[in-house]
Amino acid sequence: MNALNTLTAEELRARLAEKEAALAEWKAKGLSLDLTRGKPNAEQLDLSLDILNVINTKEDCFDESGFDCRNYGILDGIPAAKKLFADLMDTTPERVIIGGNSALNMMYDTIARALIFGVYGGARPWGQQGKVKFLCPAPGYDRHFFVTETLGFELIPIEMKADGPDMDMVEKLVSIDPTIKGIWCVPKYSNPEGVVYSDETVRRFAALKPAADDFRIFWDNAYAVHDLYDDAPVLLDIFEEAAKHGNEDMIFEFASTSKITFPGNGIALMVASENNINQIKPLLGAQTIGSDKMNQLRHVKYFKTADGIKEHMKRHAEIIRPKFDIVIEAFRANLTGIAEWTEPKGGYFVDLAVPDGCAKAVYDLAGEMGVALTKAGASYPYGVDPRDRHLRIAPTFPTNDNLRSAVAILCLCVEIVAIKKLLNQ
Amino acid sequence: MNALNTLTAEELRARLAEKEAALAEWKAKGLSLDLTRGKPNAEQLDLSLDILNVINTKEDCFDESGFDCRNYGILDGIPAAKKLFADLMDTTPERVIIGGNSALNMMYDTIARALIFGVYGGARPWGQQGKVKFLCPAPGYDRHFFVTETLGFELIPIEMKADGPDMDMVEKLVSIDPTIKGIWCVPKYSNPEGVVYSDETVRRFAALKPAADDFRIFWDNAYAVHDLYDDAPVLLDIFEEAAKHGNEDMIFEFASTSKITFPGNGIALMVASENNINQIKPLLGAQTIGSDKMNQLRHVKYFKTADGIKEHMKRHAEIIRPKFDIVIEAFRANLTGIAEWTEPKGGYFVDLAVPDGCAKAVYDLAGEMGVALTKAGASYPYGVDPRDRHLRIAPTFPTNDNLRSAVAILCLCVEIVAIKKLLNQ
Repeated sequence: MNALNTLTAEELRARLAEKEAALAEWKAKGLSLDLTRGKPNAEQLDLSLDILNVINTKEDCFDESGFDCRNYGILDGIPAAKKLFADLMDTTPERVIIGGNSALNMMYDTIARALIFGVYGGARPWGQQGKVKFLCPAPGYDRHFFVTETLGFELIPIEMKADGPDMDMVEKLVSIDPTIKGIWCVPKYSNPEGVVYSDETVRRFAALKPAADDFRIFWDNAYAVHDLYDDAPVLLDIFEEAAKHGNEDMIFEFASTSKITFPGNGIALMVASENNINQIKPLLGAQTIGSDKMNQLRHVKYFKTADGIKEHMKRHAEIIRPKFDIVIEAFRANLTGIAEWTEPKGGYFVDLAVPDGCAKAVYDLAGEMGVALTKAGASYPYGVDPRDRHLRIAPTFPTNDNLRSAVAILCLCVEIVAIKKLLNQ
Repeated sequence: MNALNTLTAEELRARLAEKEAALAEWKAKGLSLDLTRGKPNAEQLDLSLDILNVINTKEDCFDESGFDCRNYGILDGIPAAKKLFADLMDTTPERVIIGGNSALNMMYDTIARALIFGVYGGARPWGQQGKVKFLCPAPGYDRHFFVTETLGFELIPIEMKADGPDMDMVEKLVSIDPTIKGIWCVPKYSNPEGVVYSDETVRRFAALKPAADDFRIFWDNAYAVHDLYDDAPVLLDIFEEAAKHGNEDMIFEFASTSKITFPGNGIALMVASENNINQIKPLLGAQTIGSDKMNQLRHVKYFKTADGIKEHMKRHAEIIRPKFDIVIEAFRANLTGIAEWTEPKGGYFVDLAVPDGCAKAVYDLAGEMGVALTKAGASYPYGVDPRDRHLRIAPTFPTNDNLRSAVAILCLCVEIVAIKKLLNQ
């Protein structure tokens, strides 16, 4: 807030008038722009068009073992898909369950199973233990929080820092409160800040000593290979670290191809210890005959290897890196000294932290100007950002031109709201 | 049992020797045959190969409204898929939710939701009411029973008759016991008997007056269009009948394309009243971003209309009708007066009822001879057939030659076990 704090009231009023005039010009254009959608743009989708043509004939429908993927069978994924994604996630096929088209659904399902049946090593189902709680590093992913809110958990916010969740608080809470059953983590390029958990953070997660015998870390590695730059940060392997403490059963890892091939039409997967897999598979056998094997085979034939996926992700990066640049350059040029923001090296979001008490007002003003933002507060449990400060910016979907306009308007809105607050208007 | 009952012990012994000699000849061939698999054969799968080529280009990925099915969005199914399957199921798109690749999974999920959240009109979640029960018409579908067994229900068998479940018993139980929360029904070509519920049975279901305020009929219309003959029996529309009694909220209907296109790689759907849909959709919104829209679009483009699906099913019938004929002709020729069996007009199974106390022994003997049967008892709750009588025969998957051999061996096994029982061997 330094940049504005140094101004006199008169200077602030002059600046406000100038910015409001600029905003009025934008408003006159009657634009309708959208910064809410954390989804790939059409150009990105075009990258994967060839996956539509890897299964065209009867012969294409068989996997390498000769299994006819058109028919019933195989609960936890065809072997070639388990191998492909095990390689990608640096694990072994035995620890992989291939799911349907939604990692979020796999997470919901995993929690619903824990509520009804419990988890490996737990004395009772979560649902039979009265009030249960879930830790929610915030800002975080609204749909994570909504899953646990819907399923009746009390959500406990944990402050996000530059290297991951506040581990002092996490360690303290899980060590004393056996009603805390889990924590949501997006360890690489967290939604919305783009934080990559530091080695120390991962090690502290891996070494947790929960009071609950049935505590689980939901390690949503949604952006595992979604780097913007070649010199991408490397996330420490939590399973390797956990093994050192006998804690491998404490982790459920998730990922999907939703932002690799076609969102909502891809492959989800989970990675878990042998004990967890052995507890889950028989229950899964009551739930379903297994996931869509043709789509698994499509991904296997299209990518062939984990390296194939990584190469593909570089082409995504080429398309969306300039969009992150547009946002961050505009913030640097217009909001330095007024707001704070993250400059992620990957993922799908930028977090914009405006002055305290200003996020809702910026959201409202931007909306009036035709720029849709994700609702202020959405990245906090129950939608309540205690300092009313964070806005989630999704740069990937708009065209570059629309993105430039939207961010220009957004920057004006932030400055106007900030000045008005200083002027007590 | 008349045919055997008229024989003297000596005649029986002679006949036994003759049949055992015949069986020994079969055994010498060392065949390995399988009558367990209620799944389409390869020729049937080939019928749908063209569905692999209806989405090949970017332009193919858009639905009729211009929506890009490659990207996120649409929780309950693309409009064209809802329309297609609404037409097929004689309902309206508003009453349809398109699911993933497994109707069984939609049923599991519907029950899990009812356990955790309750159903529309119910005072409390099923899971908060202590012991809850489910009615299981038997013989029935083992995977249905396994879902409710796994989810902790007490399973109550209901006798299946030629026109559907014993409705006197159903009416009596649901009217007095509020802990009974649901009933499994396969109303057309029931698994395994192929029974089509009579108009009276459907009307009595539609008019039920359950003691529970949250009772649901799980109407698994798995074989809705799976007729073997042109003059197929017509199942009365249960929703229409239920409307006459204000009972539409009592019914969840399910179907899938698993035995229309590619099993386990198709489209599942549920049909429900507006009240039920409105209760489910927000909860579904916490569970998932929606099902695979590309696969929905694939089915829409391939079939175009409900009539397109019905025409397609005639080609399935041409392939599998001869297989049902092989089984039934062999039973008529060899088991008349020894066992009883159903002669279904559609679906995927034939039920063979051997003399009381003989099913397990037939299963064992056939297994020794290289003929795999679905485990005796599997079509009863908890796997317990009280009279040890029913065997489920799945004619569709084997080649006609293998099927002839398998059924010939099976018939010998039935007669041998029956004679031994009469001889107290």
